[in-house]
Amino acid sequence: MKIDELLKQINEYKYLDLQIDMTRGRPSPEQLDLSLPMMNVLNSDSDYFDADHNDTRNYGSLEGIPECKSIFASVFGTPQQNVLIFGNSSLNIMFDQISRSYSFGVCGSKPWCELKKIKWLCPVPGYDRHFAITEHFGFEMINIPMNDDGPDMDLIEEYIKDESVKGIWCVPKYSNPSGVTYSDEVVRRFANLKPAAPDFRIYWDNAYALQDFDGEERLLNIFDLAQDFGNPDIVYIFTSTSKISFPGSGVAAMAASSRNIADIKRHLSFQTICFDKINQLRHARFFRDLNGLKKHVHRHCLILKKKFDIVEQALSTCDPGIIEWTKPKGGYFVCIKVNSIAKEVIERCKDCGVKLTEAGCMHPYHLDSNNSYIRIAPSYLSEDQLRIAMEIVVLSIKIEELRKSSK
Amino acid sequence: MKIDELLKQINEYKYLDLQIDMTRGRPSPEQLDLSLPMMNVLNSDSDYFDADHNDTRNYGSLEGIPECKSIFASVFGTPQQNVLIFGNSSLNIMFDQISRSYSFGVCGSKPWCELKKIKWLCPVPGYDRHFAITEHFGFEMINIPMNDDGPDMDLIEEYIKDESVKGIWCVPKYSNPSGVTYSDEVVRRFANLKPAAPDFRIYWDNAYALQDFDGEERLLNIFDLAQDFGNPDIVYIFTSTSKISFPGSGVAAMAASSRNIADIKRHLSFQTICFDKINQLRHARFFRDLNGLKKHVHRHCLILKKKFDIVEQALSTCDPGIIEWTKPKGGYFVCIKVNSIAKEVIERCKDCGVKLTEAGCMHPYHLDSNNSYIRIAPSYLSEDQLRIAMEIVVLSIKIEELRKSSK
Repeated sequence: MKIDELLKQINEYKYLDLQIDMTRGRPSPEQLDLSLPMMNVLNSDSDYFDADHNDTRNYGSLEGIPECKSIFASVFGTPQQNVLIFGNSSLNIMFDQISRSYSFGVCGSKPWCELKKIKWLCPVPGYDRHFAITEHFGFEMINIPMNDDGPDMDLIEEYIKDESVKGIWCVPKYSNPSGVTYSDEVVRRFANLKPAAPDFRIYWDNAYALQDFDGEERLLNIFDLAQDFGNPDIVYIFTSTSKISFPGSGVAAMAASSRNIADIKRHLSFQTICFDKINQLRHARFFRDLNGLKKHVHRHCLILKKKFDIVEQALSTCDPGIIEWTKPKGGYFVCIKVNSIAKEVIERCKDCGVKLTEAGCMHPYHLDSNNSYIRIAPSYLSEDQLRIAMEIVVLSIKIEELRKSSK
Repeated sequence: MKIDELLKQINEYKYLDLQIDMTRGRPSPEQLDLSLPMMNVLNSDSDYFDADHNDTRNYGSLEGIPECKSIFASVFGTPQQNVLIFGNSSLNIMFDQISRSYSFGVCGSKPWCELKKIKWLCPVPGYDRHFAITEHFGFEMINIPMNDDGPDMDLIEEYIKDESVKGIWCVPKYSNPSGVTYSDEVVRRFANLKPAAPDFRIYWDNAYALQDFDGEERLLNIFDLAQDFGNPDIVYIFTSTSKISFPGSGVAAMAASSRNIADIKRHLSFQTICFDKINQLRHARFFRDLNGLKKHVHRHCLILKKKFDIVEQALSTCDPGIIEWTKPKGGYFVCIKVNSIAKEVIERCKDCGVKLTEAGCMHPYHLDSNNSYIRIAPSYLSEDQLRIAMEIVVLSIKIEELRKSSK
C-alpha cells in the first residue's frame, strides 16, 4: 500500500478526537467489578478476629495474619514462616528492600550507601518502574538481553563475578513487557548463582504468578531449588493482588529464606507497627485459599484473553519483515519490536489520540539504542477502543516503516 | 503503713494469675466498636469514584483522594495542596521520611548517609518508637528536658547552631508520655528556629490532635507561624486516624511547605504507584469533614476520660513526697515520676501479672539515668481491670519506696 493511502486512513482517526490511554497495565472497570463482592465480606456485624484469635482491628501482627500468610505461602510455594505480608503494593516492598539494603546492608553486610559503586543487572526489555528504582538510588544498571526462555544466563553468570553487582530484576512469569516465562533451565541457573557479593539478591517479582490465559504455565519453584543448591538466601520473591483484587487496595507479600526474613523483620519493626490487617482479613475471607484465588484470576483472564487476541489479530496484518511481537500466554503486556522506528510510531499514535508507553521506557536510562521496542498494554480499554487503538498502532508502524525506507 | 502489710496486700494479687498488658497505647475493644459502622460505608453497590471522578479501585492519585486531603487539611489547618495522604501508619511516614533524607538528602542537601555524624534532638520523656527510628539509623540522640509547657527551647536554640543536628522529635499535643501540650511561646519559638543546617526539620507528630477530654486544648498552628516567620520549610507535620478509626487500618497523612511536598513527591513516585484509596474513600465518606471527625473522637474521649480518672484517683492515694505524675487533658498516657525506683516498680508489677511499658523506654538508648519514669497506658483495659492494675502499681510504688528508704 502506498504511504499516501495509509496517511489518509490514519488521518481520519484524528477527527475522532480520541483519548485512548494505553500507557500502563491497568485492569479494566469490568475486571474491577469482579472483585466488588469482596466489599461485602466485612461489615459492622463481622467477626474481626483472625485465626490466631487476634483482633485485626487493633495494633499487632507485623508479619500479617495467619490466613493471609497461608494463602500467599501457597502462591509462592513456600512454608508459611517464610512469608511476610505487607501493605498494598509489592513495588513499595521492593523499593523498601533496596532502601533497607542501602541504609543498613543485607544480613550483616556493609550498607550499600557506604560502597563506591553498586551495579544492578536489568533484563531488557523490562519493567520501567523497576529500573526507575535502581536509577533513583544511583546504581549503575547493566543491560541483560532477554531470550525466549528468559535472560541471558551466560552473561549474568559472568557479571556476578564482580562484587559490586548486588542484584537483578526479574519478572519470571509473563515478563513485563515480553511475556516470556523463564524456562526450567533458566530458573535452575538462577537458583544456583554463586555471586562474588554475599549480599547479591535476585528480586523475583512474580506479579503475574496466576495470570494464565490457557492452563497453567510452568515456572519452577526458585525457593525450593535455591534451598536444594545450598543457596537459600539468593532470592527475594514478591507478589501482590493488585491485578487480582484492586490495584492500590490489594495485599502485597514477600517470601524469602528464614535468614532473609529475620534480617528484614529486624528493620521492619522500626518502620511500622503493622500493616492493614482488616484488608488482609477481607482478602483472606473472600479468596479462602489458593484455589479460590485461581478461580478468581481465571475470570480476569477470560476478559484479558479476548483483548490479547485483538492485539494479535491486528499485528498479524503487518508484513512480518517489518515487525516482531510476542504472543504471551498470560500477563498484561505484548511487546513489539520494530526496526528503528519505535519513537516515531509512538509519536504518531499520540497524534491520533492513542497514548502508548513512552519510548525507551523498557530500557534502563530510557536508552533503547536501536529505537525498536513498543509496549502494548491492552487491559484497560474496551474491546472496541482496543480495536481502534490497534488499527492506529498498525497503521503507524506501516507508515513509519515506509517513511524510513524512502529516506 | 508497714512494708509487711503492703507486701501481704500485693501478694494476694499473685494468686489471681492476672495477665494485664498496659505496655502500649492501644484503643480498647469498646473504642474499636465505635468505628464499626465505617465498615458499612462501602459495599458492592457503592460508587467508587472520588471527587475528581477517578475510580478509587484502580491505580492512580499518589497524593491521595481530594475528599481525604480536604479533611486532613482541616485537621492540620493547612491548604489542601500542602497535604499528602499515605497508607495506614504515620510512624511509617516518619521512618520513610528519615530514610529518604538518609539516602537522598532534603530539598537538595547532601544525603545524610554521606555525613560523618548526624545528631537528633529528643525531648525526654518521649515516645520510644520515635527514638528507636533515630537510633536505628545511627544518629546521636541528645536529650532535651521537657518542661510543663514543652521542651526546653533555650537548649534547642543552642543545639541547632551545630550543623550536624538535623532534626527533633515532637509530640506537641498531649505529648507521649507526659501529656504536655506545647505553649504558644514554645510553638512560636519552634516556628522561628534558625538552625545552622538547612536540612534540619521538626518532626511534628500531632498524633493526638483531636483527642481532647475537656474542650479543645489550644495548640498554635506551626505551619502558619513558620510561614509568617519566613521559615516555611522548617516543619513536617504528621497525623493519622490510628486512634480514631482503626489502629493499623486507618489513614495517615502529612503536611509541609510546597517545597518540602515537592521534594517528597519526587521520591515517593519511585516507591509506590498509590496508597489504598478505597480505604481513604471509606474514611472520607464516614467522617465527611472535620466536624464529623471531632464528633467521633469525642466518643472515644468519653471512654478514655473515665480511665484517666481511675488512674488519677489511684495515684492520688500516694504520698506526694514519693511521686509526681501528669494530669493530661487528652491523649493516651500518664507519666509517673518516682525517686530512682522505676525499674523495681515495673518489675514488681510484672511479678503480679501487670505488664507496664519497659523501664527506660521513654529515653533515648533506654537510659533513664535517674531510674524515675513510668508510663501508664490505661486505654486498652476495662475499668475493672484498670482499677486492679492501678492498685498494684500504687502498692508497688509504696513498697519500693519503703524498701529503698530502708536500705
